[in-house]
Amino acid sequence: MKEQVELHKEEFLRELEDFLRIQSISSQEKHKDDVKKGAEWVAGALEKVGVENVEIIPTDGHPIVYGDWLHASDKPTVLVYGHYDVQPEDPVELWDTPPFEPVIRDGKIFARGATDDKGQLFIHIKALELLKKEYGELPVNVKFCIEGEEEIASPNLGPFINENTEKLACDAVLVSDTSFIDADHPAICTSLRGALALEVKVKTANSDLHSGQYGGGVPNAVHSLVNILDSLHDDKGRVAVDGFYEGVPEVTEQLKEEIAAIPFDEEKTKQTLGLSSLYGEEGFSFLEQTGIRPTLEINGVTGGYGGDGIKTIVPNEATGKISCRLVGDQDPQYVYEQIEKHIYAQKQAGADVELKQFIQAKPVALDSNHPMIQKAADAYEAVYGVRALFPKEGGSIPIVEVFARVLDAPVVLMGFGLPSENLHAPNEHFHTENFTKGIETVTHYLKSL
Amino acid sequence: MKEQVELHKEEFLRELEDFLRIQSISSQEKHKDDVKKGAEWVAGALEKVGVENVEIIPTDGHPIVYGDWLHASDKPTVLVYGHYDVQPEDPVELWDTPPFEPVIRDGKIFARGATDDKGQLFIHIKALELLKKEYGELPVNVKFCIEGEEEIASPNLGPFINENTEKLACDAVLVSDTSFIDADHPAICTSLRGALALEVKVKTANSDLHSGQYGGGVPNAVHSLVNILDSLHDDKGRVAVDGFYEGVPEVTEQLKEEIAAIPFDEEKTKQTLGLSSLYGEEGFSFLEQTGIRPTLEINGVTGGYGGDGIKTIVPNEATGKISCRLVGDQDPQYVYEQIEKHIYAQKQAGADVELKQFIQAKPVALDSNHPMIQKAADAYEAVYGVRALFPKEGGSIPIVEVFARVLDAPVVLMGFGLPSENLHAPNEHFHTENFTKGIETVTHYLKSL
Repeated sequence: MKEQVELHKEEFLRELEDFLRIQSISSQEKHKDDVKKGAEWVAGALEKVGVENVEIIPTDGHPIVYGDWLHASDKPTVLVYGHYDVQPEDPVELWDTPPFEPVIRDGKIFARGATDDKGQLFIHIKALELLKKEYGELPVNVKFCIEGEEEIASPNLGPFINENTEKLACDAVLVSDTSFIDADHPAICTSLRGALALEVKVKTANSDLHSGQYGGGVPNAVHSLVNILDSLHDDKGRVAVDGFYEGVPEVTEQLKEEIAAIPFDEEKTKQTLGLSSLYGEEGFSFLEQTGIRPTLEINGVTGGYGGDGIKTIVPNEATGKISCRLVGDQDPQYVYEQIEKHIYAQKQAGADVELKQFIQAKPVALDSNHPMIQKAADAYEAVYGVRALFPKEGGSIPIVEVFARVLDAPVVLMGFGLPSENLHAPNEHFHTENFTKGIETVTHYLKSL
Repeated sequence: MKEQVELHKEEFLRELEDFLRIQSISSQEKHKDDVKKGAEWVAGALEKVGVENVEIIPTDGHPIVYGDWLHASDKPTVLVYGHYDVQPEDPVELWDTPPFEPVIRDGKIFARGATDDKGQLFIHIKALELLKKEYGELPVNVKFCIEGEEEIASPNLGPFINENTEKLACDAVLVSDTSFIDADHPAICTSLRGALALEVKVKTANSDLHSGQYGGGVPNAVHSLVNILDSLHDDKGRVAVDGFYEGVPEVTEQLKEEIAAIPFDEEKTKQTLGLSSLYGEEGFSFLEQTGIRPTLEINGVTGGYGGDGIKTIVPNEATGKISCRLVGDQDPQYVYEQIEKHIYAQKQAGADVELKQFIQAKPVALDSNHPMIQKAADAYEAVYGVRALFPKEGGSIPIVEVFARVLDAPVVLMGFGLPSENLHAPNEHFHTENFTKGIETVTHYLKSL
């Protein structure tokens, strides 16, 4: 298969460039038609390789693309998930070449969406093409469910999955939207943290007040906010909200060992990030803190005067943004309610508090011993000569938990990105070697099922 | 004298309107020439009423206007201080009439600087005019020292006073730049709090980090900042910085009684400010908290994401603005150093802290029993029928402490403003009744010395 991939490599990259030219930014209303073009492009690409029953399914937001090929009787069914929408390109002035004019240099294809997720999604389409070319048919049944709203937290895909369990029924969900640990260490992520985000707004007087006239005698919205925000952690870096850790699994020795096996260079990390010291929950390593422990981070704070110099006011309004990463059986709604209770109990006299909830996603843990995942590790080994590791990702892909729960199928997070590929940032790129090796790995995997 | 004032009232108001048309905004470079025009206008007005030796003295910033009339041998010398510069007019759209086009309606003259301080300063010039008209000479020796930088914390007047102690030598400094308690209660402020302001900036990594990838394992600049800011107070509203209260005088029973005599309606204050509750240092009343106790207020805070919705980052930079009001023998420099020490001790691992100092002013307390102040109270009683009270102002006029200390003279804060006159805000105004009664009060005072 390696030769086949090499033979078609340039042609495949030209097609990928077409895909990358589409400005399918799902968060921006002005790009609504471009997102639709993205859906049409995916539908066309699926039809071209022989996927059947291709549909562009409208939703309240951007469309979902479905297609299948179900002629491998007695063989398992794999549902491929991916997304054709991309992040905004801002700040555009920091791109070396325009974000929607793909360029290949130094073995990397540069464009918004190159690694997240157009390039990785396209691997699956091209793998099918080569398998069909080689054998005239596919070794397994395949379904595609490709969305255009991943970058805006998949508001319509969850309901779609729930309403189409028959249509989407499968033996495994195959997703390429994650990364290797580094260029030498392919990885199948087996754990994603859940997420929860909220805003807390503190209000006191009906306007800012003069700190000379009123300072010391009236509530200060910023004081009350920093008091609330600081109370969310204790001095050991633990979250100090009652009930926050309910459902967090004990860290077993086996898990500790699995994580300790993942390469991590603390000095290099500190140097790269420009930090004199790391900081986190006492008693856990960095990879444990960022992979398997829940966190609560303040993402931003504003209140009162923020310009140059000083303005001697008692501010009347202050806002904090908070997000949590959740693990194990932590329930986002329960955690939100506990934080809400904590904040109301903490607020100072004369301060009113308003809360607003944003994202909510359950954590997901996948069993690395499942044969569908072990076979994926075999596939990497066959192509890369190295068996995939099973890291715990600190990030969240909310829809993975829905797939796993609703379809009751293992989700195989067979990523081909690298952590250095600037996803969500200027100069996003994808290594063309992982594009071609990815096609090989996927064909190997599907044949092995 | 009342008849004289009435006779010239309209003429004086027309002159004041001319003064108010000058856009002498000292903080804005583009108005540098307007500020100079303000100085020239004051110099002209002084010469017109027979003040001698009038000079416009250049400084590194805006000029100081000096003038004197020293022909009352064996009589005391009064130094009149005031300022001809004004605050910016922003937000200009909230003014009912343009800020530099004075309009009189409902017995109030509306314009930027009407009460702070052009209208109040002009009272003294017109009082001299009427005294000279009436008696052909003045009952006391008079000096004028009028600056154009009060609204930018008087950077050049302090050095000028220090270098010109002979020239400015006097028996009392007379200042009209403060307010009545309310329309029925004239006031001579006998205490101004000192001031100190600083900025604290916390930096962690060299950029914001993804909260999924790094959250829980790296320092968060906003966490560290809110931890620092929250640590500045204890849960009884006291400042928790070691040494902060050094030099704060014990509150005597006499002082408590003096303050308790000042009218204050807590319910009305809460209602006006839109507050469900006041908040301050335990064990002190509102007027004590805002008048004679030192405070530390956070004036603003910024860090991380402040837009709509959420951005799941670990912020790498956060800034807080802090200002203190100081009393008694508190030394601003010492207090600054104690806060600095506190902040460095409090900062979390991996967080770097930078401090920047702004304003610094010593507190000042004036003896209400001094005859120069008692006679001022008499003058109010003669004109208003009510004796002036001696409130403790929570605000700061940094130069008052310098006058009192360097010239070793009592400072008589004979204010004619009202707290409701929107100083520093849109629709600033000055009650014309207090303009004319102010002229009467000043003539009465000068004659009584």
